[in-house]
Amino acid sequence: MNQYRYADIQIGQTESFSIKITQDMENKFREISGDVNPLHFDDNYAIEVSNGKYQQHVCFGMLTASLYSTVAGVYMPGKYSLIHSFDEISFLNPVFAGDVLTVEAKVANKNDSLNLINLKIAIKNQNNKTVSKAKMKIIVLK
Amino acid sequence: MNQYRYADIQIGQTESFSIKITQDMENKFREISGDVNPLHFDDNYAIEVSNGKYQQHVCFGMLTASLYSTVAGVYMPGKYSLIHSFDEISFLNPVFAGDVLTVEAKVANKNDSLNLINLKIAIKNQNNKTVSKAKMKIIVLK
Repeated sequence: MNQYRYADIQIGQTESFSIKITQDMENKFREISGDVNPLHFDDNYAIEVSNGKYQQHVCFGMLTASLYSTVAGVYMPGKYSLIHSFDEISFLNPVFAGDVLTVEAKVANKNDSLNLINLKIAIKNQNNKTVSKAKMKIIVLK
Repeated sequence: MNQYRYADIQIGQTESFSIKITQDMENKFREISGDVNPLHFDDNYAIEVSNGKYQQHVCFGMLTASLYSTVAGVYMPGKYSLIHSFDEISFLNPVFAGDVLTVEAKVANKNDSLNLINLKIAIKNQNNKTVSKAKMKIIVLK
């Protein structure tokens, strides 16, 4: 876990990590959130409702977005992170169980009066397709 | 699970539900996301880093935000939901294990050319304090 302090962080600095999405993660997310929508477990429903655009159930967008928690809490800034807000989260392409996602974050700006950093983050799949993007504000506690 | 179709949905329509946050949910979120930041399990660290403002570990903001998945996928519109994006998510007050959160969503607008609804959502705790707010765009698939 990184332990960057506010003064250590440079505009333009980047961090990244990769993670494989599994059906077990999807099941745990369903238990936590209570989001029992069939798009996220029923392959036949996903094929039907998407007119064949999806060939299987689709991962929860907010499970992909849970990686924004990780990028802040473990990588940038790491230990002294406190998430303030998002200016934007978009979901651009579907994620499926088995996909390997790579999260790439860049420090876009710093606000010295609030000890706050702005991250621009993209999440790409194993085919280099962007599946989600976000602009995130994080308070650095030290 | 609601099964609103796009044509059924009225601007101003509201949906709400409540859920209790537990330490088990926090542990599962940690496993899924890989966010092992001590703020979310180590009471002593949370007290120290917040200068006593927090008396115990703080729930992951993105675990609270996973309820935005549920409001779309189960309540508004329910079955035919596909999350498009968020214009904003903010975290306004800390959430702790044991808190009972109430999610209140209102249809702020509709975009007929995209079959897209705009929700304004607030999440409040058992003391009626707003802990998170969001503006969410959802495609209604039927």
